[in-house]
Amino acid sequence: MKALRYYGARDIRCESMDDPTLQSPRDAIVKVDKCAICGSDLHIYHGHGFSEDIGYCVGHEAVGEVVEVGRAVSRLKVGDKVMISAAVGCGSCAACLAGNVVKCATNSGNCYGLSAALQGCQAEAVRVPAADTNAALIPEGISIDQALMMTDSLATAWFGARQADIVPGSSVAVVGLGPIGLMAVESAFAMGASIVYAIDLVPERRALAAQLGAVPIDPEAAPDLIREATKGRMVDCVVEAVGVDATISLSLRLAARRGTVSVIGVAQSRKFTFPISRAFGQGLTFRIGTCSVPEEWPALIPLIQSGRLKPERYISHVLPLSDGAQAYALFDARAEGALKMVLTT
Amino acid sequence: MKALRYYGARDIRCESMDDPTLQSPRDAIVKVDKCAICGSDLHIYHGHGFSEDIGYCVGHEAVGEVVEVGRAVSRLKVGDKVMISAAVGCGSCAACLAGNVVKCATNSGNCYGLSAALQGCQAEAVRVPAADTNAALIPEGISIDQALMMTDSLATAWFGARQADIVPGSSVAVVGLGPIGLMAVESAFAMGASIVYAIDLVPERRALAAQLGAVPIDPEAAPDLIREATKGRMVDCVVEAVGVDATISLSLRLAARRGTVSVIGVAQSRKFTFPISRAFGQGLTFRIGTCSVPEEWPALIPLIQSGRLKPERYISHVLPLSDGAQAYALFDARAEGALKMVLTT
Amino acid sequence: MKALRYYGARDIRCESMDDPTLQSPRDAIVKVDKCAICGSDLHIYHGHGFSEDIGYCVGHEAVGEVVEVGRAVSRLKVGDKVMISAAVGCGSCAACLAGNVVKCATNSGNCYGLSAALQGCQAEAVRVPAADTNAALIPEGISIDQALMMTDSLATAWFGARQADIVPGSSVAVVGLGPIGLMAVESAFAMGASIVYAIDLVPERRALAAQLGAVPIDPEAAPDLIREATKGRMVDCVVEAVGVDATISLSLRLAARRGTVSVIGVAQSRKFTFPISRAFGQGLTFRIGTCSVPEEWPALIPLIQSGRLKPERYISHVLPLSDGAQAYALFDARAEGALKMVLTT
Amino acid sequence: MKALRYYGARDIRCESMDDPTLQSPRDAIVKVDKCAICGSDLHIYHGHGFSEDIGYCVGHEAVGEVVEVGRAVSRLKVGDKVMISAAVGCGSCAACLAGNVVKCATNSGNCYGLSAALQGCQAEAVRVPAADTNAALIPEGISIDQALMMTDSLATAWFGARQADIVPGSSVAVVGLGPIGLMAVESAFAMGASIVYAIDLVPERRALAAQLGAVPIDPEAAPDLIREATKGRMVDCVVEAVGVDATISLSLRLAARRGTVSVIGVAQSRKFTFPISRAFGQGLTFRIGTCSVPEEWPALIPLIQSGRLKPERYISHVLPLSDGAQAYALFDARAEGALKMVLTT
Repeated sequence: MKALRYYGARDIRCESMDDPTLQSPRDAIVKVDKCAICGSDLHIYHGHGFSEDIGYCVGHEAVGEVVEVGRAVSRLKVGDKVMISAAVGCGSCAACLAGNVVKCATNSGNCYGLSAALQGCQAEAVRVPAADTNAALIPEGISIDQALMMTDSLATAWFGARQADIVPGSSVAVVGLGPIGLMAVESAFAMGASIVYAIDLVPERRALAAQLGAVPIDPEAAPDLIREATKGRMVDCVVEAVGVDATISLSLRLAARRGTVSVIGVAQSRKFTFPISRAFGQGLTFRIGTCSVPEEWPALIPLIQSGRLKPERYISHVLPLSDGAQAYALFDARAEGALKMVLTT
Repeated sequence: MKALRYYGARDIRCESMDDPTLQSPRDAIVKVDKCAICGSDLHIYHGHGFSEDIGYCVGHEAVGEVVEVGRAVSRLKVGDKVMISAAVGCGSCAACLAGNVVKCATNSGNCYGLSAALQGCQAEAVRVPAADTNAALIPEGISIDQALMMTDSLATAWFGARQADIVPGSSVAVVGLGPIGLMAVESAFAMGASIVYAIDLVPERRALAAQLGAVPIDPEAAPDLIREATKGRMVDCVVEAVGVDATISLSLRLAARRGTVSVIGVAQSRKFTFPISRAFGQGLTFRIGTCSVPEEWPALIPLIQSGRLKPERYISHVLPLSDGAQAYALFDARAEGALKMVLTT
Repeated sequence: MKALRYYGARDIRCESMDDPTLQSPRDAIVKVDKCAICGSDLHIYHGHGFSEDIGYCVGHEAVGEVVEVGRAVSRLKVGDKVMISAAVGCGSCAACLAGNVVKCATNSGNCYGLSAALQGCQAEAVRVPAADTNAALIPEGISIDQALMMTDSLATAWFGARQADIVPGSSVAVVGLGPIGLMAVESAFAMGASIVYAIDLVPERRALAAQLGAVPIDPEAAPDLIREATKGRMVDCVVEAVGVDATISLSLRLAARRGTVSVIGVAQSRKFTFPISRAFGQGLTFRIGTCSVPEEWPALIPLIQSGRLKPERYISHVLPLSDGAQAYALFDARAEGALKMVLTT
Repeated sequence: MKALRYYGARDIRCESMDDPTLQSPRDAIVKVDKCAICGSDLHIYHGHGFSEDIGYCVGHEAVGEVVEVGRAVSRLKVGDKVMISAAVGCGSCAACLAGNVVKCATNSGNCYGLSAALQGCQAEAVRVPAADTNAALIPEGISIDQALMMTDSLATAWFGARQADIVPGSSVAVVGLGPIGLMAVESAFAMGASIVYAIDLVPERRALAAQLGAVPIDPEAAPDLIREATKGRMVDCVVEAVGVDATISLSLRLAARRGTVSVIGVAQSRKFTFPISRAFGQGLTFRIGTCSVPEEWPALIPLIQSGRLKPERYISHVLPLSDGAQAYALFDARAEGALKMVLTT
């Protein structure tokens, strides 16, 4: 099959690769219809990924059709159109049974396309372990593109907003307006936010947030503008969707007393200086981490079905898998209005 | 002063009455700017009110200006424009201190205009007991009409939706589309409902709900249509905004397994037959009661300020206080598109 | 194999029966080590059970050893010691995946031993459908007897207390002190109840509750005594563990303003008169239904492991399966201090 | 009057001082019966307090009798025995009205005895601003000593446990076993913790925690022992009751995936290095701050009244106010089993 393979910094190639095969009775093989590039794939693209492996297939967002199932797969069958969760659990532990794969006892943090250990899904096919847990039928009334957005980025955005303790009436700031940040803006409104301040360096991205009803702000000006707009109270809830020290620090400055900062940007810092004294004075809650993708689906599915969430609108480019290298380059450059890059097989 | 006084079934008269005076150091006197008629006032209008008194002043929804305060009033001063909570607490017990006046130890269920014990506010002025607790400054960015809606009906609608356990993605039914029911529809969407079924006998009211994005349904057809639309699951959350046995029974039939029915219609039945066996099989939650008005304000204020809730649009008529009898008659007849009837002094 | 079979009112016989066999690749066959009689089995014993079938095997509380698994069973294997959930889900729908089998889309309310459709487990062996969902390994540090109590009665008691909205500091009443009621008392204290009033007609059962730290009260005296003890406030949370109209009515009288009544007694009434007007005045929450057994296990397991919950102490009798008829008779008569009746194979 | 006054590091003197007087109609003057020394008073004692003032009266934990009230005080009267909240709100803003004085719009973080701006209560009398909000009648069934513990330390311990997201069944670690840490252990059990690991350098303090049912551990050994005991999962909830970088770091190492670390130790660090990358991988929640004392009272009062919480047992010494300097020295040295130091007037 064809697959996007990692060979070093800025060196992703569409090449042949062995077809995936069942490795356990609980596995399924899914022929990929569409896959997408995630902001966190850029960590790999920049050469500071999550392993030293070379030549492995990248990518963790895909939808497709089940073409083979192990004998212990009971919920899916050949021919099913499925969405594959980017977060991968063992499917057997108590956490997985409760739908919380991030807390998985044996497999936590597992994901496709981070190393050769679990090949990615920017390919013509992918092996899904514990398929009953880690994939699901695309529900009626949900398009392929919408399902694709649910495999990671919308679920992460929604989770980020939830973890920011947004309740009806909350004031919110979203820092970073890539696809996940923009969907966090949309999620915040769906949860009842009264106002959302949308913060990014890129004017085009701020303009998209403004179309969603947010107040667009440049990062530099954000603390002062928000202080003025809120008469010094700052915002109840902050969603950080970048993951670097500067934006995490900014986020901590924007939170009100007893506010919450929720970091969903993939954060790799080992030396972040946390303002303990100020946070103590304000009574802050600081949350950080990734989402158990399927845990978010029961809320997302009806909201997409009824048209209240429209994640497909963040798809800016659709290219063939063979143009994967170009798609990565465009996305990395934030060129041509690149937001969500989708690849077709 | 002039006041609307109750003299028997369908006999409300605008007459002179003694001006209110301070009865405790914690009282305030408020000159009423605008007041409104509530659906529950019709219980009184129909002659089966909450006391045997005659000649007392009716009404429990009003906004106005503070003209006199007792020496122990510390949060309000003469000249303040205030909204008066329809729910009246003692202001001193633990429940009142936590903002939950419905749980007030000494005063629970107290309200203006139900008897001569606490004169109503469909008048040129009203005495507000424990004014620090039972009234509040109209916040910046909130109009007089919006504040008036917050004194009871919007707060009740919002509370009804909250008590129905609406979370983002919930499916909802609202039974009864008077002003409170319509605002419950709007509240449900603000809380993230994926779909709202809006049920009322009156086609015009259903049309208004449809404009808010709800699916309008005739009560008779509701169980079958909702069963079909939800493939037998029924809805997660039901808000009942009428209060009679038939609509409470209907509401119980619309709830899904582990669903919640929230009754905010003023319910006076003493012999309601509850389907215990069916409810047991379904795992239902049934909630019923009124709201601690000021408890709802912290969420409502920013949502009105940001334009996400527009309660003023349910005001159908504005008449002088002297036309109060006519306003009652119109409202009772549901004539001329009567929804919220406002009276000016 | 030997099994307890139902032949009519008060006619349960230990007889031979065909061994259970796999009917689906997801089934498991469990050789029963111990099983128990539940209060709800008495509905069947009294002849007003849940089906018209004759000769079926009764019982829904059992632990044992897996002796055969279908090919699609992935979490359990032959030789595993397991506890079997009394609540049976399809294992495939969204509700089952989230652990909430009561909300199961296709199978809700299913349980062993209510009819011939799913044979009971008061037998030497039982077929467990969707075994990955409906049974689990007995965790380390949990005895067979403790596991047996978790298959239904402790889970139900715990759920009943949860659904009563017990939080640290709550005042609680438990109505009905059979094994489930007594475990509800113990659960309430584990959840932080400040005081628990324990109400039953049987003095011996009240004495057991008193040993747990509860205040024992006779049902007749309960409203007055609780009114006096709480200075008129009544209790925050009521757990009803009987299921008949009189005890449900009593429970509704014991609740404070904004209190919650949680009914877990199997309630079959179709004509219960609910005091709507009073409930409206008080702002009550009324919950009723059964529990999704495995949903309660993550909290129960560590509490049993650490010795904070001791459900095994409610086992009053251990008899061989062949004495099942006698066990039913004793339990029905509440004779000889009968609480939890356990049968061994 | 006599008062403990601060004159520099380790220089607290019992001296004469002007009697407090009403400064606003909402103030009350309370004659102090008993006051106590808090761990955070040692920051002042060590010379790195919260202001540059000299000669001000210290202390923020006291109970006593109302001897004078301003004309706008409505809930308290002369002769009332009251407990004074260490956290001081304006009493007028929305946050204060909801009982959340930490979020107070104008006054947040205010406390007695941190500077000359609000004189402390280690004195024969103290002025209580906004007395209706910042003090309350000692409830029936609560002793003077129990009330004294509620003015700050028990409320803080309880809040710390709440903010650690403790639910029934949680595994918990408490780092630091001063009076607040010990009461956090007791609070954790009252909230249903299945197990509590109690960590402190001082063996005597660990022994006290063991008497409460906790597993005592030396800090050095804590990560390894807890890893082994939990089979690598670590604990769900960590309460940090010291406030220095080393113990905050230790706390972060003890938390399980999706766990919560709650810091209530007064933390003054400006350069704490937060392990962002690890926290991201684990999905941590980090909370830090002080409590809105009266917000915790509704849960604490019934738990003390019923004997489930016994905060008075942490009082190790009772001395006259005139021996205040000695009390500070003893407490600072952790000498003679010093835990809670109480001073009488």
